[in-house]
Amino acid sequence: MPHAVSDEALDTLFRSARSHNRWTDEPVSDALLMAIYDLMRWGPTAGNITPGRIFFLTSPEAKTRLKPHLDDGNVEKSMTAPALAILAYDLDFPETLSILKPHAPKAKHYYDGKPDLVREDAFRNGSLQGAYFIVAARALGLDCGPMGGFDRAGVDQEFFSGTKIKSNFLCALGHGNPAALHPRAPRLSFDQACRIL
Amino acid sequence: MPHAVSDEALDTLFRSARSHNRWTDEPVSDALLMAIYDLMRWGPTAGNITPGRIFFLTSPEAKTRLKPHLDDGNVEKSMTAPALAILAYDLDFPETLSILKPHAPKAKHYYDGKPDLVREDAFRNGSLQGAYFIVAARALGLDCGPMGGFDRAGVDQEFFSGTKIKSNFLCALGHGNPAALHPRAPRLSFDQACRIL
Repeated sequence: MPHAVSDEALDTLFRSARSHNRWTDEPVSDALLMAIYDLMRWGPTAGNITPGRIFFLTSPEAKTRLKPHLDDGNVEKSMTAPALAILAYDLDFPETLSILKPHAPKAKHYYDGKPDLVREDAFRNGSLQGAYFIVAARALGLDCGPMGGFDRAGVDQEFFSGTKIKSNFLCALGHGNPAALHPRAPRLSFDQACRIL
Repeated sequence: MPHAVSDEALDTLFRSARSHNRWTDEPVSDALLMAIYDLMRWGPTAGNITPGRIFFLTSPEAKTRLKPHLDDGNVEKSMTAPALAILAYDLDFPETLSILKPHAPKAKHYYDGKPDLVREDAFRNGSLQGAYFIVAARALGLDCGPMGGFDRAGVDQEFFSGTKIKSNFLCALGHGNPAALHPRAPRLSFDQACRIL
């Protein structure tokens, strides 16, 4: 069975893809945002818990609510992006397990009285889903500008008050202006990051 | 600029890909394991910190060292897989920032005296890299069997003693036997997991 992923696609997803800071005027439709989720939701999580939640900010009003919580260096990149996503995870994910694990109706009780495990599983698997999001957006022809520099408590208060949803990272979305990119930073070699035993 | 990812590739990466438990006899070469890393290492991390570390277990001896730390339900899947990967992250990642951020020679000092931030950034970004790993392996024609059910402290003691490397999750690698798959579990709908503001 030959694999279906061309060399050109591997460039788009990984090798040539860059994190962007500056954007063209090309808009990003709501339908395209929904298509990102429709792809990334199939990425695997532990026991199919899928704690990832995504709040897309596309209106000027929504972006304005985010602005005061951004590090200074992330304001222009964010406010000029056609769309922004708050990649978050829900500590209430056990409540959704009746949907996600129809074969295991008592699955939610696995987490009863284990708040540390809930937090760890939500953070790990919500982060996996954040990476699937980035790859899916690139696969659909978008450029990403992921960001960790913001006040998570402030964003949670502004957008997730009254819930157990916690912000993880932000991702600007659009069509990047490659002329604004710096040279690419290096990565660790195989021998610096891996072992074969 | 048209995107380079075909519908067939999106199936391979997301829509048709399944987590596997049973494997064909087809081996997985060391060269292919190195190719996974060569792709996934380009996935973005916060400030290019790339804390992910991967220990590939391919020899019977290495798998035997892992076996006592596996949950019962993960033993057969793991021991019969052509290769296994321990997806880990290194809390000593600030020591590599002189390589990763040649434009910012003092970057490592950002983390001085901030062990909680080191742990959080390593866990978040090591998890992102774990997801890039899964997508890259699939892109190269492999099937994955990711697993969270194992004794992390035991694995860390066995494989990472004397370092600050911490295990995150395991991933069996090979060519899956689709006849052994259960029906696919559902995912949350867009409205259950996302908002557009």
